[in-house]
Amino acid sequence: MKEFFQVLDIDAVLALKERFERLGNESIPLGNSLGRVLAEDIVAPSDLPGFNRATMDGFAVRATSTYGASESNPTYLDVVGSVVMGQAPAFSVGSGQAARIATGGMLPEGADSVVMLEHTDNLDANTLEVHRSVAPGQYMVARDEDMAQGRLLLSRGRPLKPQDIGVLAAIGRHTVGVYRRPNVGIISTGDEVVPCEADPAPGQIRDINSHTLAALVQEAGAQPVAYGIVKDRYEALHAAFEKALEENDIVLVSGGSSVGTRDLTLDALEALEQSRILFHGVSIRPGKPTILAQCGTKAFWGLPGHVASAMVVFTVLVRPVLDYVGGRLIRMPVRVRARLSRNLASVQGRADFVRVRLTEKERDSWAEPILGQSGLIRTMVEADGLVTIDMNSEGLDQGTWVDVMLI
Amino acid sequence: MKEFFQVLDIDAVLALKERFERLGNESIPLGNSLGRVLAEDIVAPSDLPGFNRATMDGFAVRATSTYGASESNPTYLDVVGSVVMGQAPAFSVGSGQAARIATGGMLPEGADSVVMLEHTDNLDANTLEVHRSVAPGQYMVARDEDMAQGRLLLSRGRPLKPQDIGVLAAIGRHTVGVYRRPNVGIISTGDEVVPCEADPAPGQIRDINSHTLAALVQEAGAQPVAYGIVKDRYEALHAAFEKALEENDIVLVSGGSSVGTRDLTLDALEALEQSRILFHGVSIRPGKPTILAQCGTKAFWGLPGHVASAMVVFTVLVRPVLDYVGGRLIRMPVRVRARLSRNLASVQGRADFVRVRLTEKERDSWAEPILGQSGLIRTMVEADGLVTIDMNSEGLDQGTWVDVMLI
Repeated sequence: MKEFFQVLDIDAVLALKERFERLGNESIPLGNSLGRVLAEDIVAPSDLPGFNRATMDGFAVRATSTYGASESNPTYLDVVGSVVMGQAPAFSVGSGQAARIATGGMLPEGADSVVMLEHTDNLDANTLEVHRSVAPGQYMVARDEDMAQGRLLLSRGRPLKPQDIGVLAAIGRHTVGVYRRPNVGIISTGDEVVPCEADPAPGQIRDINSHTLAALVQEAGAQPVAYGIVKDRYEALHAAFEKALEENDIVLVSGGSSVGTRDLTLDALEALEQSRILFHGVSIRPGKPTILAQCGTKAFWGLPGHVASAMVVFTVLVRPVLDYVGGRLIRMPVRVRARLSRNLASVQGRADFVRVRLTEKERDSWAEPILGQSGLIRTMVEADGLVTIDMNSEGLDQGTWVDVMLI
Repeated sequence: MKEFFQVLDIDAVLALKERFERLGNESIPLGNSLGRVLAEDIVAPSDLPGFNRATMDGFAVRATSTYGASESNPTYLDVVGSVVMGQAPAFSVGSGQAARIATGGMLPEGADSVVMLEHTDNLDANTLEVHRSVAPGQYMVARDEDMAQGRLLLSRGRPLKPQDIGVLAAIGRHTVGVYRRPNVGIISTGDEVVPCEADPAPGQIRDINSHTLAALVQEAGAQPVAYGIVKDRYEALHAAFEKALEENDIVLVSGGSSVGTRDLTLDALEALEQSRILFHGVSIRPGKPTILAQCGTKAFWGLPGHVASAMVVFTVLVRPVLDYVGGRLIRMPVRVRARLSRNLASVQGRADFVRVRLTEKERDSWAEPILGQSGLIRTMVEADGLVTIDMNSEGLDQGTWVDVMLI
């Protein structure tokens, strides 16, 4: 039996991420870019909207022409034209003049504001009565008010949100440079594991981990590649590991919680080309029996066989490394605050991730720990999130406000 | 000009959702089901794991055989066999007996617990020295501990998370019944709007809304279908509306913030078959000039032309109705608590949605309101979320804890 406890803590594991290679870029159509990670800084190529634009229906004027106007003492302006939507007006607006304009229209040269339709009366086709004064810039957007030429709009490493796609459309970027999506090979091991489609005999269970991990990978913005179930035999493991490593940017193998199987996995990992075991064991619960090997520039993870453990390890350790490799610098906070419904004990030197259900009670959100071993997939289905008890803590008291990481 | 103010509040708008038809089901492969909405209740067809399963490496025993065992006073058991992974043991374990077992192995008949390897010594091939007692059920999972036959595992209306996919794999569901994904037709209008690929002339702007709305639709789990830009002419609008309605479950048209264009849109909507305008105007800011028409069993939304307004309306009004149509009963809370960095004024009778940036300061999260008109896409890019000032409030004070809805 190999030495079991080359155990690192979470921070030490995460510090290893820079050993792995960041992926290259590709150019994709804007319409396919939701959630993809920007691989370039986006700078405004020109002012936007690019012209002074009305935000109300009314009349484009010089603000000074309206000063002092009121219901009881209106001002009279000459209507010199009508702005056609989508066209630059061929006329200008001087002092004492006004031009009909609709929301979205381009202000004529000389106009610096818009009088709302509601504050005017048309005395005749050419004469406008104005009942209220406006300030310069009122009811319009200035030519560079949305963005000025040269402004940094979006930074490399940002996963694209709908509004970011809006900005890219606004500046005419119908294709966009993004990081290639990491391909993540997924292998299950275990002589007792059968495919989802099979009818398990007594002593066998279906392959839960491959499906769960594939969905986690997909949710994280990467591309899962399934390699099915490999028997607990050195040759079979080694061949599957080699193939998955060749074909992917990252590989996850899960299963083999028994010491013998773990050792087999370690042996097969060590035998890969340019391979080095970075650790086996992390000071977290669940998830301690986790392995990370560096194979050349790629990460090869050995995850615990218990599905709830594998999910925690994916969320806490694998995903940040996957984010690094995929160029992703931002992950939106998906944490909510809640009060702990009962005491939770822990031990110093180990970070605990406790599955909790969120409930509302007495106008507060409460996090209720879910009981049950980490081999039970049900405990993850019942959970809305995880509460962390950090490694310097001996536990958390009932009623404490905690951050719940949604899962 | 038509009457402008047939204004509803948010609750009244959301109460309309049941007028629209829920979509039908389809059966899809499990591997494609992440985020899809379950259209059936999922019940455990049998116990899981289906057999008593070891969670540690060691020896399967009857707990009573170990009672009283300690380091100083060990108990001796007869080793009667070794459990092969993935197979039902052909032997049983009686009183005073033990069987070798690895994590994940099936406990033999008669055994009710596992003694950890660390707490034993092999005296010879057939004799085991046990240094610690175990309780019945220890270091094992009972045959129905993950789920008992007949237990409701997942309910109709639930969007599938990775762990749900794990449960479905566990019970052998390699296909799953989900609601069809709503097809959402998206139309932009405006004589001043040109496609993203075009080079806008003075007075023109690119079509931001189509791209932003398509991404919002996609993010919500529905399928966007783009119909491009339609000119502000009754015939063109009517023809486009008819086609989009025919080909989709829901239609969104955006643009036309000027009163004339709004009226044209209303006219074209009213002329659709079996069409009825449910309201035009919602007491929210931004987003007031929103229209909803019921066309047969389908919803046809007229959204404000300003992109930030359109996004708010989509998030607050369209998405809940889309969720209803797509069978979705759950949307995970994506809200975080933060303190307001400055006073916000509002008026009673109108709900305000204020774009905010989240920052960390003095160990608290702060929500900093972003200034700028709702026509500015930049303000949405800078925003992490929205703070709601409800319609009964006249504003919020600096320092107040608020819920920020992430966007």
